[in-house]
Amino acid sequence: MIGRLNHVALAVPDLDAAAAQYRDALGADVGAPQELPEHGVRVVFITLPNTKIELLHPLGDDSPISGFLAKNPAGGMHHVCYEVDDIAAARDRLVAAGARALGDVKIGAHGKPVLFLHPKDFAGCLIELEEA
Amino acid sequence: MIGRLNHVALAVPDLDAAAAQYRDALGADVGAPQELPEHGVRVVFITLPNTKIELLHPLGDDSPISGFLAKNPAGGMHHVCYEVDDIAAARDRLVAAGARALGDVKIGAHGKPVLFLHPKDFAGCLIELEEA
Repeated sequence: MIGRLNHVALAVPDLDAAAAQYRDALGADVGAPQELPEHGVRVVFITLPNTKIELLHPLGDDSPISGFLAKNPAGGMHHVCYEVDDIAAARDRLVAAGARALGDVKIGAHGKPVLFLHPKDFAGCLIELEEA
Repeated sequence: MIGRLNHVALAVPDLDAAAAQYRDALGADVGAPQELPEHGVRVVFITLPNTKIELLHPLGDDSPISGFLAKNPAGGMHHVCYEVDDIAAARDRLVAAGARALGDVKIGAHGKPVLFLHPKDFAGCLIELEEA
């Protein structure tokens, strides 16, 4: 069912510093910061030949990243995103298999339908599914 | 400098259960468990169209994964691995940029030269570089 790894998301306490590390020390293709107020994040996309890295920083008072950074002040790996062809079919299959979705399908940061899965059902790893 | 994302490694408390979740609930291409005693891990590789997921579980008394699972008993995202063309050149560039390597270049789980970078220099994310 799952297809490509769309991205790995890393929560970072200083977006500009993390972007500079990837650009200067690691020599990666690092984009400009973007504010996504409807998702409560400021993001930098890093384009690798086969996938993307998303650097995430909280934006606003109700960011989904704030709690993670409170627990992990130095930053850390936040989630992985796998592509699926049909998000509704994916949700139904996962629920039938006993996995829990975190909320409903919604429109994600890339303008496509996404669904988050409970990390307790996947060995502590937060998984996002995105309809590619 | 960095090229493809070679893999994302997830530390899991129950390798068979995590493999079954990826195979049955997520419908992924999940390999058979492999023991790598020289690296202190039992691993399952999950092949996605563009990269791999590595499920890691401790093997033996001196596993590099044991400490992580003691801190994160439910499991969690452990590291990302980026490919580089020349590991010695990568190390020199990183050290010149002020980043710290964790130990020296050694032969990794795939039989290729690898180097781990200090998470404190990369916003809390453990990075492995592999000479592809």
